[in-house]
Amino acid sequence: MGAIITLTTDFGLIDGYVAAVKGVILSINPQATLIDITHQIPPQNINQAAFVLSTVYNYFPPQTVHLVIIDPGVGTKRLAIILKTSQYYFIAPDNGVLSYIIRKYSTELDINSGLAAVAITNPKYWRSPVSHTFHGRGIFAPVAAHLSLGVPMKEFGEPISSIDILPLAEPHIASDGSLIGNVIHIDSFGNLITNIEETGLPEGELIILIGNYTIRGLSRTYVEGRKLVALIGSSGYLEIALREGNAAIYCGAKIGSEVAIITKTD
Amino acid sequence: MGAIITLTTDFGLIDGYVAAVKGVILSINPQATLIDITHQIPPQNINQAAFVLSTVYNYFPPQTVHLVIIDPGVGTKRLAIILKTSQYYFIAPDNGVLSYIIRKYSTELDINSGLAAVAITNPKYWRSPVSHTFHGRGIFAPVAAHLSLGVPMKEFGEPISSIDILPLAEPHIASDGSLIGNVIHIDSFGNLITNIEETGLPEGELIILIGNYTIRGLSRTYVEGRKLVALIGSSGYLEIALREGNAAIYCGAKIGSEVAIITKTD
Amino acid sequence: MGAIITLTTDFGLIDGYVAAVKGVILSINPQATLIDITHQIPPQNINQAAFVLSTVYNYFPPQTVHLVIIDPGVGTKRLAIILKTSQYYFIAPDNGVLSYIIRKYSTELDINSGLAAVAITNPKYWRSPVSHTFHGRGIFAPVAAHLSLGVPMKEFGEPISSIDILPLAEPHIASDGSLIGNVIHIDSFGNLITNIEETGLPEGELIILIGNYTIRGLSRTYVEGRKLVALIGSSGYLEIALREGNAAIYCGAKIGSEVAIITKTD
Repeated sequence: MGAIITLTTDFGLIDGYVAAVKGVILSINPQATLIDITHQIPPQNINQAAFVLSTVYNYFPPQTVHLVIIDPGVGTKRLAIILKTSQYYFIAPDNGVLSYIIRKYSTELDINSGLAAVAITNPKYWRSPVSHTFHGRGIFAPVAAHLSLGVPMKEFGEPISSIDILPLAEPHIASDGSLIGNVIHIDSFGNLITNIEETGLPEGELIILIGNYTIRGLSRTYVEGRKLVALIGSSGYLEIALREGNAAIYCGAKIGSEVAIITKTD
Repeated sequence: MGAIITLTTDFGLIDGYVAAVKGVILSINPQATLIDITHQIPPQNINQAAFVLSTVYNYFPPQTVHLVIIDPGVGTKRLAIILKTSQYYFIAPDNGVLSYIIRKYSTELDINSGLAAVAITNPKYWRSPVSHTFHGRGIFAPVAAHLSLGVPMKEFGEPISSIDILPLAEPHIASDGSLIGNVIHIDSFGNLITNIEETGLPEGELIILIGNYTIRGLSRTYVEGRKLVALIGSSGYLEIALREGNAAIYCGAKIGSEVAIITKTD
Repeated sequence: MGAIITLTTDFGLIDGYVAAVKGVILSINPQATLIDITHQIPPQNINQAAFVLSTVYNYFPPQTVHLVIIDPGVGTKRLAIILKTSQYYFIAPDNGVLSYIIRKYSTELDINSGLAAVAITNPKYWRSPVSHTFHGRGIFAPVAAHLSLGVPMKEFGEPISSIDILPLAEPHIASDGSLIGNVIHIDSFGNLITNIEETGLPEGELIILIGNYTIRGLSRTYVEGRKLVALIGSSGYLEIALREGNAAIYCGAKIGSEVAIITKTD
């Protein structure tokens, strides 16, 4: 069947690891359409993988299988899981990398919300021998391929009722009344994506502070300001960008850097 | 339909932007074959994207849709366009990124030459809501997908009679009679690709000057010379290469560096 | 036909070279499934390409065509070849890049072992004009496409009875009885992959020496040790890794660095 399987990993592009995963999938389901999300997640960076995945998974057709292999605990007792939402399947180690997906629901899996999960324990669908250091090839890939062929989720293992969730940084109100958020992602343009969502912004004229820089008001596009602009980015988060430049370098900002929002007072 | 859609962007490979574009396309045309040209165009570098695209588009089958998203003006009044040549479709912002394609014809679009273009204005084929900072996902991707399904070009918007053209550097003859060109691309091997085409070379024995280096005569392959060689590269341009090395580093050359050609006199 | 063709090159990802190869293939076999192994082999690094290919080719379905274009001698008299094993086809320049494939058999091609090879000499299946600097586009790609459509191997040229083999570094026993191997690959995590295979390890409790570091015993997973661990990696070789870090940087190791193994004595 021509199912779509996406891949998000920290494997990089210089080795054969990604291709081994794809070869195993195509050996089981030659009709699968394989789409790379990214393989450039910094090694073992579960938070970044969780964020990048959250910005893209819902642009794929229903029934897409999202395979996520950021797996510092490979070969240990951490579970490998399949998570089903109302529209998609996710296959990943149970290490929090699906936190943004599950956060849209409750932290406990609720079958009434369309969520269900299983621990991948049935070796029938694995590729033997399984290397202790490469479950992507031995377990995740063949499970994704069989799932894409229509094997029911319960075939892969026992249902579980909760999955691991990362302690995601949330914006908060400081004692002076300002809204404090953090940079949670820096994209390849150097745009600073914060954890402040459009719906969380205060009313009134906004002043955005990052490092030593002050930005007055929100822009609609990257080219409206003269230099630094703040705007609501394509994933719904407050984003700080530099017109035809790299805001991260310009501001000296890093993942975790604080962003403060105050409202103009007369 | 199993149409081919190629993608050329400056999105990089660490984020979900490329995959969002692909997910939107596959949601509309699940049979599309998606081929990456490159996503590593330096941010907002329209010239480099225009050149890279020009070296590869005509190796694809007729009717291929080439999607090009280098879009520093995203969300502004710059047009988004579809350009049709006798063999291909191009979808891009109207910012000059199709200059090398159109240069083969006249700068004014001439229906008799098989060229036609429309401004993409009909929101019927967009994916709502359209982010002001990501027309790739909201406009270009769904338009490419619908076009690949056979929706006629005129459905997407009104015909236009000219498109934006970059001021491309052209070789010229200096007062001393030498031919002066420029490096217009440096490939990943460090080969220096100039804007001097084979047909523009003077007759006789050539001497090629770049920086402090002198190259006598053209080689046929990369390994013929001892060190630096000049040859006609695979895209038809004069190219300077270093045997088993990186000519750009060796020569200290950059995009724009001058290359002079003189002919040997007795 | 929906054949699978994999690509391993040193073309990098910033140019149009990879896409030109893909466009040529799809122009001949629009149903081909194209899978990137890597395009990030360091320029002209035949050894690294040979190793990476060896770790992944046999995870693909039988009849997969593996196209390998690391070709410092492009345009010279070096042969271009098709190698057939019992399960796969390989298309590559005859420069040793298939050494790990052939090493599993004898160095001389033996038809009884299922091996056969031809020199690609029949221009009927090339794409004219062939650039002297880009046989990937003019020769390798169209030959791979036609082969994937079922054209018999003998159509492409004359049989040959041997192919070029690299002098691969092999572990040896030093005068003090220790087993000496070398780092032959450093993956994107910084893991050091050696040429010591599991079957070549001495019995008893192992002590592994690299640079100034000593590792006692083999681990099963990356997270078992406190710092540096040695384990049998997913391709069957002894591998040295740093828990949640980069072993290559930590140890100051490079390709070729020595690794010594001694057995604990009482």
